[in-house]
Amino acid sequence: MRIAFSARVGAAERAEWLQVLREVCPGHEWHEQWAPGEAFDAAVVANPEPGVLQGLRGLRLVQSLWAGVERLLQDATLPPGVPLARMVDPAMNAAMAETAAWAVLSLHRGFFDYAAQQQRAQWLQRRQRLAAEVPVLVLGYGAMGAAVSRSLLALGYPVSAWRRVEPPAGTPGAPGVRLLHGTPALHQALAGTEVLINLLPLTPQTRGILGAPLFEHLPRGASVVNLARGAHLVEAELRAALDAGHLRHAVLDVFDTEPLPPAHPFWAHPRVTVLPHVAALTDARSAAAVVADNLRRLERGELLAHLVDRARGY
Amino acid sequence: MRIAFSARVGAAERAEWLQVLREVCPGHEWHEQWAPGEAFDAAVVANPEPGVLQGLRGLRLVQSLWAGVERLLQDATLPPGVPLARMVDPAMNAAMAETAAWAVLSLHRGFFDYAAQQQRAQWLQRRQRLAAEVPVLVLGYGAMGAAVSRSLLALGYPVSAWRRVEPPAGTPGAPGVRLLHGTPALHQALAGTEVLINLLPLTPQTRGILGAPLFEHLPRGASVVNLARGAHLVEAELRAALDAGHLRHAVLDVFDTEPLPPAHPFWAHPRVTVLPHVAALTDARSAAAVVADNLRRLERGELLAHLVDRARGY
Repeated sequence: MRIAFSARVGAAERAEWLQVLREVCPGHEWHEQWAPGEAFDAAVVANPEPGVLQGLRGLRLVQSLWAGVERLLQDATLPPGVPLARMVDPAMNAAMAETAAWAVLSLHRGFFDYAAQQQRAQWLQRRQRLAAEVPVLVLGYGAMGAAVSRSLLALGYPVSAWRRVEPPAGTPGAPGVRLLHGTPALHQALAGTEVLINLLPLTPQTRGILGAPLFEHLPRGASVVNLARGAHLVEAELRAALDAGHLRHAVLDVFDTEPLPPAHPFWAHPRVTVLPHVAALTDARSAAAVVADNLRRLERGELLAHLVDRARGY
Repeated sequence: MRIAFSARVGAAERAEWLQVLREVCPGHEWHEQWAPGEAFDAAVVANPEPGVLQGLRGLRLVQSLWAGVERLLQDATLPPGVPLARMVDPAMNAAMAETAAWAVLSLHRGFFDYAAQQQRAQWLQRRQRLAAEVPVLVLGYGAMGAAVSRSLLALGYPVSAWRRVEPPAGTPGAPGVRLLHGTPALHQALAGTEVLINLLPLTPQTRGILGAPLFEHLPRGASVVNLARGAHLVEAELRAALDAGHLRHAVLDVFDTEPLPPAHPFWAHPRVTVLPHVAALTDARSAAAVVADNLRRLERGELLAHLVDRARGY
């Protein structure tokens, strides 16, 4: 098959992607440049320049190398009607589970506090609590939310997971995870939450969801971990909730502007932990295997995997 | 039964211990003071003043509330022949597994580096590796070593565990953990280790084990996590190995002198994470249940649990 490849990433990363894709998906022609109206079977893209796929003929699949596709969907020139698949990479899900486990352990066991104490050479033991005493709420329950929930359950935390809408009938349950949906259930769950982890897809419905109204439903002393998208969070309202003492700590991997500008107040905030968008990177090797699987399905006329519902936005 | 209780801890902590013990072990008489030669069935102690049990009559059990009993064994007045039991508290084992998981995740995923970057407002993404690529070696394989190993295995790390001597025949295995013993096996395992976690009991044989000769068997870039006793570590040799660039990072919960003196170089060392001896605290509630169980066994003449081999030292 003829594949159009477009990645708006660093040159070294782009070269690595192409090399791994050519190794894992042999037998296809990979192109990085094309003439207007040229014909391709599929496009494989990572954060492509808007308009880059416009007018391509014959496309039967646009496969994203990124898990979040909100920017792709904002590109009005994205060929309509062509199936769009997002990345669901097992290595990326595992990485997200690791980051979430580290953040929850750090909050529960006071390791951010001990790091601050080390700065002042202060020896002070804090009270130790059981994991069973620290309820965690995960927002978003796709492949990542499920991996994160399983990992936290194994560490002994009581885990609830919330989806905006009811899951389709037949969706497998999650042993040990309390699954919730809808706004009233969210408000009720927030009241009993100590650590909130955001893994929602970014859609018009979830933009700004981490704001003052949600924070007010959390009990005093709760913490917020945003591992999804910067636009989920209303940064000024988080600062206000931290500075008022209502929220205890925030772990933020994503921001309105990335890289986070050097003068941004989050860098120096004593109760904000800043990560440079590294909670879960796509792993080229395992992601290429996911792409290869979908290209094989396309070739054989089988059902494609990880398709995006364009109306829903994920 | 008449129980002698002695705890060299803060007054509030001592009061909490006594209250919980009286609740969980009703029907016994608990005494904090006694005359020379007074008779007791058992003594329950936490880091007692040396000599405090000297001359007590009738003792059939000394139950420690601490997991490590090396100080008790150094007390030459400890009544000879009386069974000595150490604390094996499930909540403490879980806390140790949490601390180990946090330390390994922090090292593997670069979270200590990202914390340092935040101090300089530096946005820099580091390469992400799979947990399967980070071999961990646990020194010590009692109840804590087993809990730590299970937790790290669940997170995807390849885990080896080493004991100084061969386990007694009939010791249950550990699915997924590579169990080793003896010095040649240790040296071989160290060469393939990225994160070394020390959970050994402190005995004459293990004192100073974390020193230059052991560090030289680790590959360049390995990290050391000491969660056992300060005397396991030769502090100056660790500093030398870090400063020479042979070791990458150390996470230290225990020290030669505690509290760690304000002028100690570890506080400000950029590649040392200092914890104030909080990796795993005994949980009064679950530890009291362990004490109650052993007192019940004593009353009924059953086999006592968690007995220390005084010659072996743990």
